[in-house]
Amino acid sequence: MSPQAPLGVFDSGLGGLTVVRALLERLPEERIIYLGDNARVPYGTRSANTVTRYARGCARVLIERKVKALIVACNTVSAVALDVLRAELDLPVIGAVEPGASAAVHAVEKLAVRPAGPPKIGVLGTSGTIASGAYPRAVAQISTRFEVLGHAAPLLVPLVEEGWLEGAVPELAVRRYLEPLVSGGAGVIVLGCTHYPLLKNTIGNVAAELAGTQVPIVDSAEATAGRAAELIAEGRIAGANPLTWAAGAPRLELLVTDLPGTFDGVARRFLGAETPAVAQIDLVAPS
Amino acid sequence: MSPQAPLGVFDSGLGGLTVVRALLERLPEERIIYLGDNARVPYGTRSANTVTRYARGCARVLIERKVKALIVACNTVSAVALDVLRAELDLPVIGAVEPGASAAVHAVEKLAVRPAGPPKIGVLGTSGTIASGAYPRAVAQISTRFEVLGHAAPLLVPLVEEGWLEGAVPELAVRRYLEPLVSGGAGVIVLGCTHYPLLKNTIGNVAAELAGTQVPIVDSAEATAGRAAELIAEGRIAGANPLTWAAGAPRLELLVTDLPGTFDGVARRFLGAETPAVAQIDLVAPS
Repeated sequence: MSPQAPLGVFDSGLGGLTVVRALLERLPEERIIYLGDNARVPYGTRSANTVTRYARGCARVLIERKVKALIVACNTVSAVALDVLRAELDLPVIGAVEPGASAAVHAVEKLAVRPAGPPKIGVLGTSGTIASGAYPRAVAQISTRFEVLGHAAPLLVPLVEEGWLEGAVPELAVRRYLEPLVSGGAGVIVLGCTHYPLLKNTIGNVAAELAGTQVPIVDSAEATAGRAAELIAEGRIAGANPLTWAAGAPRLELLVTDLPGTFDGVARRFLGAETPAVAQIDLVAPS
Repeated sequence: MSPQAPLGVFDSGLGGLTVVRALLERLPEERIIYLGDNARVPYGTRSANTVTRYARGCARVLIERKVKALIVACNTVSAVALDVLRAELDLPVIGAVEPGASAAVHAVEKLAVRPAGPPKIGVLGTSGTIASGAYPRAVAQISTRFEVLGHAAPLLVPLVEEGWLEGAVPELAVRRYLEPLVSGGAGVIVLGCTHYPLLKNTIGNVAAELAGTQVPIVDSAEATAGRAAELIAEGRIAGANPLTWAAGAPRLELLVTDLPGTFDGVARRFLGAETPAVAQIDLVAPS
C-alpha cells in the first residue's frame, strides 16, 4: 500500500465526520476519503447481521479506492463487526471502541478522588453498541480491574441531527440517560457514538451537576483519531508531504449513499467547516 | 383479484402497525400482510428518489404475495412516491396523506369557533413529508379555501421508539413543534406520521394549552383505515366470511427486513396487542 494513499473512513451516516475533523487537525499530511452510508443510517438499532453486511459493503467501496487503512468511525460497526472486517480484509482496520475504552481507562486512573471498589467507567451509546457489550469487553482486554456501566441513549442521535444541542430538551434527555451511570458510581463518561461530541458541553454540565464534581468526558472520535495517528507512525505509512501530492488531489473526499436537502447543514455541523464537493454512490441493489 | 386475498400494508418500519391496528378493528373480515422495512427505517430523512426506490421494493414483495390492494401506511412514501406506485401498479393503492387531509378538512369545518380568514390546518410530519408539500397539495385538491401550515418534527419518531410518550421531554419537544402552528392559527392538527398516534394525548394536551381551547387532533392512521374500508366497499373486494377462510390462514402476517432484539416490545406498542409470528425477508442485495 502506498504511503501516498488516502485513509478510508466510514460511518453509518455523517456522525463520523467528527472523527474526520479530529483526523484533519491531527494529521495535516494525510488525505482522507470519507463514506457516509446515510441512505441506511442509523445502524444503531439494527441487528448485528445487518450491520455486518452493511459494513462489508462500505469497506469494499473504500478498498476499491485504494485506501491504505480503514477507520471505522462508527461505534456500532466497531462493536459488532470489527473482528469480521479484520479477518476478511488485508489492510489495517481501526475501530472506535478500543481507542475510547483505552482513553477511558487512562482518564479514570487519573481521577484525584476515587471511591472504594473497582474504578467505574460509564458509557453512553446506541442500543446496538450497548447491547453488544463491546465496551466492557474492550476494557476487560486492558485490565479486569475496571467496571463498565453502559446505558443506551437512542434519543441523542436525533437530537444532534435536529441541531438541538443546548436547552431544556437535550438537558432533560441527557439527565435521564446519565442518572443511572452517575448514581452507579461512574467516574468518567465515554461518548460511545460519533454524534455525541456535539453534545459534549451539555453532557459535561449535566454529569457535573449530578455528581457534584467535574466528570471527565471521553470523546471516542478524538480517541479514534489518536489511534490512527499511532498506527500511521508505527506502520510507517505516513502520508507524503502535501507539496508532493498529485496536482488537484483533494484533501478530503466525501462519498454518501443519499443526498437529502438537509445534507450541507448537518455535515457542516459535524465537520465544523464547510463541506467539500460530495459524490453520491449506490450501495444497495437497484430496485 | 380474489376478494379472499389479503390486504397488503407497508411502512418504512413498525409505525404502520398503528394503521394495521385500526384496520383490524374496522374490518374484522379482512386478512392483512404487513411489511415493515425496518432494515432501512427511517424513510423520512431520505431523498425522494431513494424513498421511491425503497417503496417499489416493498410493493413488489406484497404483490408477489397476491394482495388485493396496497395500503401505504407511511406518510413519507405517500407524500413522495404514491403517484409513481399508482402509475406502475395494477391494483388499488391507498396512501396515508389524502385520507388525513380529507379528515382534517372535515374537522376544521366543524369547528364551533373560527377566526376570520381562511381556515387553517396544522400538520406535523417527518422532514420528508413536510418538505414534499404533499399535505398542502392534498388539501388544495379538496378545496382551495384552506391554508395548510406544516412543521417538521423529526424528534417525535425517536421519542415514540424510545417509549417516552409522556413527561417533560416529549412535552417540551411537542411544544416546540406545535408553537408556530398554533400561534399561526391552526384550528386542527394532523398527525402526519404513523408513529405520532402514540403521542396523541401529549400532542392534544399541549395544543389545548397553547391554544387556550381544545384543538381537534386528526390521526392519519385512523383516516387511512377508514379510506381502506370505503375502497373495499366501493370496489366490491370485501374479504370472505372468516368461517370460510382456508384452515390455518392467519389473520395477520408480519414481514420485516430486520429483526433487532427490541422488535417485540416496539411492535406491541404500535399494534396494541401481542405480535404474531414474524418472518424476516431480504430487500437489499447480499453484500
